[in-house]
Amino acid sequence: MDYKKLDKKIRNLREKQGMSQETFALSIGMDRTYYSGVENRKHNITIGNLKKICNGLNITLSKLLEDL
Amino acid sequence: MDYKKLDKKIRNLREKQGMSQETFALSIGMDRTYYSGVENRKHNITIGNLKKICNGLNITLSKLLEDL
Repeated sequence: MDYKKLDKKIRNLREKQGMSQETFALSIGMDRTYYSGVENRKHNITIGNLKKICNGLNITLSKLLEDL
Repeated sequence: MDYKKLDKKIRNLREKQGMSQETFALSIGMDRTYYSGVENRKHNITIGNLKKICNGLNITLSKLLEDL
């Protein structure tokens, strides 16, 4: 899997919603620093946390991971 | 997401390949005890480890997570 692409996809979807990392993290109840690390591939993210992000981005986990 | 369904799907796919948990774990270079925990929802699995399992099951991550 192309993790760089995954991070970029997450970042693009968040930016499309016009939200800063901080606002977005807050909206999904995730620590801002942790979330920032996700977009910068600092964590081996768990399915549970990725699902949380997907909910905030209005995308399914399956759709997010498609073609990666 | 329905984690129970995910675990069941993984288990079914492994059994379809006629492999025990031990043989399967060995084939993907994963600790047997850890893998057994995955099928029994003992871990909040990371994307990296789930991807490893998908490779062994010949299924994409996106396909595995579809409809869950």
